[in-house]
Amino acid sequence: VSDLFAGIYARGEAAACVGEQAWLRAMLDVEAALARACAAEGLIPAAAAERIAAACEPAGFDLARLAAQAGEHASPVVPLVAALRARVPEGDAPYVHLGATSQDILDTAMMLIARRALEPLLADARAAAAAAARLARRHRHTAMIGRTLMQQALPTSFGLRAAVWLDGLAQASARLGHAREHELAVQMGGPVGTRAPAVGARVAAELGLREPQLPWHTQRLRVASLAAALGMLCGALAKIARDVTLLSQDEVAEVREAGGAGRGGSTAMAHKRNPVAAISTLACARRTPGLVATLLASIEQEHERAAGAWQAEWGTLGELLALSGSAAAWTRDLLEGLEVDAERMAANLAAAARRGLPGADAPERQLGGAGELIDRALAAARGAGIEVGP
Amino acid sequence: VSDLFAGIYARGEAAACVGEQAWLRAMLDVEAALARACAAEGLIPAAAAERIAAACEPAGFDLARLAAQAGEHASPVVPLVAALRARVPEGDAPYVHLGATSQDILDTAMMLIARRALEPLLADARAAAAAAARLARRHRHTAMIGRTLMQQALPTSFGLRAAVWLDGLAQASARLGHAREHELAVQMGGPVGTRAPAVGARVAAELGLREPQLPWHTQRLRVASLAAALGMLCGALAKIARDVTLLSQDEVAEVREAGGAGRGGSTAMAHKRNPVAAISTLACARRTPGLVATLLASIEQEHERAAGAWQAEWGTLGELLALSGSAAAWTRDLLEGLEVDAERMAANLAAAARRGLPGADAPERQLGGAGELIDRALAAARGAGIEVGP
Amino acid sequence: VSDLFAGIYARGEAAACVGEQAWLRAMLDVEAALARACAAEGLIPAAAAERIAAACEPAGFDLARLAAQAGEHASPVVPLVAALRARVPEGDAPYVHLGATSQDILDTAMMLIARRALEPLLADARAAAAAAARLARRHRHTAMIGRTLMQQALPTSFGLRAAVWLDGLAQASARLGHAREHELAVQMGGPVGTRAPAVGARVAAELGLREPQLPWHTQRLRVASLAAALGMLCGALAKIARDVTLLSQDEVAEVREAGGAGRGGSTAMAHKRNPVAAISTLACARRTPGLVATLLASIEQEHERAAGAWQAEWGTLGELLALSGSAAAWTRDLLEGLEVDAERMAANLAAAARRGLPGADAPERQLGGAGELIDRALAAARGAGIEVGP
Amino acid sequence: VSDLFAGIYARGEAAACVGEQAWLRAMLDVEAALARACAAEGLIPAAAAERIAAACEPAGFDLARLAAQAGEHASPVVPLVAALRARVPEGDAPYVHLGATSQDILDTAMMLIARRALEPLLADARAAAAAAARLARRHRHTAMIGRTLMQQALPTSFGLRAAVWLDGLAQASARLGHAREHELAVQMGGPVGTRAPAVGARVAAELGLREPQLPWHTQRLRVASLAAALGMLCGALAKIARDVTLLSQDEVAEVREAGGAGRGGSTAMAHKRNPVAAISTLACARRTPGLVATLLASIEQEHERAAGAWQAEWGTLGELLALSGSAAAWTRDLLEGLEVDAERMAANLAAAARRGLPGADAPERQLGGAGELIDRALAAARGAGIEVGP
Repeated sequence: VSDLFAGIYARGEAAACVGEQAWLRAMLDVEAALARACAAEGLIPAAAAERIAAACEPAGFDLARLAAQAGEHASPVVPLVAALRARVPEGDAPYVHLGATSQDILDTAMMLIARRALEPLLADARAAAAAAARLARRHRHTAMIGRTLMQQALPTSFGLRAAVWLDGLAQASARLGHAREHELAVQMGGPVGTRAPAVGARVAAELGLREPQLPWHTQRLRVASLAAALGMLCGALAKIARDVTLLSQDEVAEVREAGGAGRGGSTAMAHKRNPVAAISTLACARRTPGLVATLLASIEQEHERAAGAWQAEWGTLGELLALSGSAAAWTRDLLEGLEVDAERMAANLAAAARRGLPGADAPERQLGGAGELIDRALAAARGAGIEVGP
Repeated sequence: VSDLFAGIYARGEAAACVGEQAWLRAMLDVEAALARACAAEGLIPAAAAERIAAACEPAGFDLARLAAQAGEHASPVVPLVAALRARVPEGDAPYVHLGATSQDILDTAMMLIARRALEPLLADARAAAAAAARLARRHRHTAMIGRTLMQQALPTSFGLRAAVWLDGLAQASARLGHAREHELAVQMGGPVGTRAPAVGARVAAELGLREPQLPWHTQRLRVASLAAALGMLCGALAKIARDVTLLSQDEVAEVREAGGAGRGGSTAMAHKRNPVAAISTLACARRTPGLVATLLASIEQEHERAAGAWQAEWGTLGELLALSGSAAAWTRDLLEGLEVDAERMAANLAAAARRGLPGADAPERQLGGAGELIDRALAAARGAGIEVGP
Repeated sequence: VSDLFAGIYARGEAAACVGEQAWLRAMLDVEAALARACAAEGLIPAAAAERIAAACEPAGFDLARLAAQAGEHASPVVPLVAALRARVPEGDAPYVHLGATSQDILDTAMMLIARRALEPLLADARAAAAAAARLARRHRHTAMIGRTLMQQALPTSFGLRAAVWLDGLAQASARLGHAREHELAVQMGGPVGTRAPAVGARVAAELGLREPQLPWHTQRLRVASLAAALGMLCGALAKIARDVTLLSQDEVAEVREAGGAGRGGSTAMAHKRNPVAAISTLACARRTPGLVATLLASIEQEHERAAGAWQAEWGTLGELLALSGSAAAWTRDLLEGLEVDAERMAANLAAAARRGLPGADAPERQLGGAGELIDRALAAARGAGIEVGP
Repeated sequence: VSDLFAGIYARGEAAACVGEQAWLRAMLDVEAALARACAAEGLIPAAAAERIAAACEPAGFDLARLAAQAGEHASPVVPLVAALRARVPEGDAPYVHLGATSQDILDTAMMLIARRALEPLLADARAAAAAAARLARRHRHTAMIGRTLMQQALPTSFGLRAAVWLDGLAQASARLGHAREHELAVQMGGPVGTRAPAVGARVAAELGLREPQLPWHTQRLRVASLAAALGMLCGALAKIARDVTLLSQDEVAEVREAGGAGRGGSTAMAHKRNPVAAISTLACARRTPGLVATLLASIEQEHERAAGAWQAEWGTLGELLALSGSAAAWTRDLLEGLEVDAERMAANLAAAARRGLPGADAPERQLGGAGELIDRALAAARGAGIEVGP
């Protein structure tokens, strides 16, 4: 799809981690690790392994050609292995890709891709959480009207709202971090999944991936679990963005996105300042539930290798990582620059009090456990490794 | 939707746990626990709390009337509280539902519903896993042709296939068990989520639910995480069911569902025996990714209480629990009765050998690490509390 | 799922059209029509056909027993045919269900179910459209601020907004009406779809369904197309409901749902009047995209009858019809009672003018083609059979 | 996402029609048409319009810069208009984009993109239908075993199976063709949708798009309807591909994809010939229901321009067009080269007869209306403009 929308859909650095260069590098990393593992197990000569690993340098591979040939095999690994064999001395060719099947390389590479994309993605999500924590601390006593079912209800504090945002970000990041630790596993089961685990264990160690109990060629819970964690993060981000679009309505005007550099201008209406970070977060996040559903439906895979459901994963997970990363980067931007108008919050409360809303005339007396709850959120976030300040 | 399909969509006991009687009971359990918690905190008289709790007996509530009135408030709690107040002495009426909001009751009740439905559901999933473990052990040396991309590939063993099924069931059950332990939390934040946590902590303790850091009125990761775990279980079940439909094709005939009592007959073709357990598993499981997507999209909730996204959860999660429960019950039935035809597997291998398929003439020499992998799967399942036998 | 939520999810009359009584009646209608068609073709005696048709009276069938037995065959038709045969003279039993397969009965019944549910559903959608038309006409000159990207933009009229709602309702109703005319077809292909079309043509004529070119046992575009039309209607309804939740925020207050009879009250906040019709519309509508996706994914059906994808349709389409019907009934209610506050719209414009919003001080001069566009919408709706008034 | 998978996900020419060059060209086409329409309406000088149109030549625009700036405005149109204004004489700059809003340009361009992508997509779908028609005619008398619920049932003919495929392709193509005729409309409503229709009518005429009754800035049925038609086509394609994977199993072997040029080879198993066209069709098609669901959920758009739901459409519709186009191209390839093994079909029937399957010993007497049904499918396809032969 058009890169013209990359500014919206591919903010931050995660998107670059799922591009074709990243896939090429990841697949070659796997072939190199496999060669070394085979050598360590005494299956191929150590020198051959090093020559193969040296040939696994991405420069020089013809990506366009690989892509074209990938179609003939429903996999880019077939032409990649052929190209790799052509780069090593003829005698080493049989040692390339030894005992592996295309899916071993693709699945392991997909996990490397995920790990590399999760790094900037989680950094952005945690920075967004840190920004939410700052808002929660700073606005602990900033009263605002609470709104339920889209109607004014009773007073709360903006600090508590920010604490709810923080709670969502911290929990979603923790779940995603947990997925990163536990779901990203090597695949090295061989053609029908019967390969003994020794080689795979070495590949896992070299690449920093988990060693699974069994090959997961057609047991796809790892992929689905990662996808679900991404979908949940996007939900947490969308909740914040939705709130910001509501709170920054002209009639409410309690928060406002940072402007600067013409951000948020309109081609037709010079007076407007649009909440572009919130809008872009929503645009990315709302594309993700359907992608997660595709990956859940794809757990159903036939026999020892699926015909269709597996091949549907590559693009879907890539999109999901890129969109989640973009949404996280946008929300970080949004929260780090959010302008909070405490006076307007007070004015809105005063107006509500004039309309007879109970408690709105003395909101500070209505905040109940808000302060205690903010502290709990901050403590929990600190425990989850979020930078929440002193 | 029509109960005429309950035999397919609502097998097992989970579906009954999400019916209207179950919801009524759960909501009343919450109101009773709330009253006792208020008494323990000194907010209401202990005797009043006991009278309220006694009134929270489901018998006598007019479900049809509650359902009708629920529409007027987009919530059944408003009429329920009115009915409950009418059942207690007039002086106790103000002590009913003290400090709570409708969402506190509904959310907490939804979590009770989930816990109660998960009990039979997880029991069925684990029994299915135990049956898969028995198949894995029994058929450790039963060679069969492995099939990749829907084509015969190389020999494997049926025991390893069953171990892959076991691995999926054990992992999916463990994830769902984890969700049951960690996601099912009390909700007791009051109208805009500012209620101090003391009362909620007591309600949580009484009902056996988690105490959350913050009210989660509009932080819905718990619901989504539970949904995702259910969706993943359904995927693991569907993988098995899909394999069984493929392996029980007349031309393959390597497995066969247990018959008996006319099971799987046809109105038009008396000779057929249809794999009804696999079919019903697939029918239930394939309905779930869309439901999970709905709940992921519903994480985006406005302000302190959402207008639409929250109310969309009740029916969706109920469907998801019922369908997942049915799929688990069907798969348990499927695996506990599965007939495995080792002779046909051998015959199919021999035929493949005649067609020149490498290794098919001596499959036992091709099984590589299959035995070791089966042992790993059994050990892991045992560690996850699955009954895998000696 | 619990009927306790029927007030929200099952408003209007569509939901009752997808219940078990409705399914039983529909299946029996098909068996009766089949018997008569077989008689007309000379395949069975006319008197036997009349006796069979007479036996196809729903009263007396044991629904609970049928539902229980349905599980054994992954279809309720097997026990239904057995029960029907037991109700006719022994000599007529072979004439029951002659040449048909379970799927013939279920598919044709599903189409009858759809047609019956679409009647109240479309009536509600068209009444909602008529109400929108009234709003468009009445508020042709009611200026309001237009809002883009959730920010005030330039003046428009409330009449034009209502015309956009009308346009959505009229178009969505027309699409759904088109689906009702063209997609609802008989199924009478026999066990593997080879039955000559003569009998099916007669059944179609008797039941008022389309005659398809071919049996559609595994060509499911009709089901998917109907589902998509329902999903689109729900989108059009949700757009209106979303606008109403936004316009009825206290800070905006330009519209307000009709109250009365305690509608929209809160257990905790007596001052609130919640937009329950809009909320319930959103709750229903947001559950539908995932259901449509399930039916789109279910177009992929194997061979001559699918194992799983077909059986997933019944409950999914039933839910979709019920939820769409409820959303339509809610929106009709919403629009028929909507209170529009033209003075507040003017006051909001004046406030915007004070903040310097261009054109807000003389909005009537900014309306451009709004009047012409309203007329176009009214004319198009009238052409589509909507009651738009003089 | 990585182009490395383009061979699978982006076969055929549709994908290129949704790339960034295509979007740039489409947006510039709209700006040019708008300028000419403004001139024709006397709003700007004709000579200025021609100078603007001449400047709307894609060469020379800096796509990377546009993409980067698009993020600042949640739209690429803001920087595009600035760049376009910089390319015309200073005095013409105010005439550029006159009276339009970003959404006018993007929505109209999206419709041009869709029309251009539908051309090769529909050509491939119709060519696939023509190939199915040839199979239906050629195999009118080729008996095969019909299979229901994944079990052998009764005889049918391969010609009838191909006729069912043809029926799906013809109907899905006709629906998509209908969407192309009726849904692809100009958008020219101006900032809040109040622009009188005159200019839009001229733009529509110049670009060959429909003129809508009203601006559809937040009435998105057109987008959803197009999406649904694409999703339905993908379902019809997946049905064929699924059947081919089943029929080409080694144990069934009734059909086989064309090989040639190493197509379908394996890195690990030299003897295999994988059904890569069917696999790739399934991989593409299974990614689409979630995308359609995203677009259905996005019908809910706020006020006069949505914050998030609209911006989510661009990438989603682009993916959907590309994947649908690829699936159509793959299925065309699949059907044009499909090898049908009538002898194996007869042998499978004979084996079924030996197992006692009724009618399998004289299948030609069991075909009932198959021939008549094939003729109906061919006639209907011919009526829908499919090339079905003499």
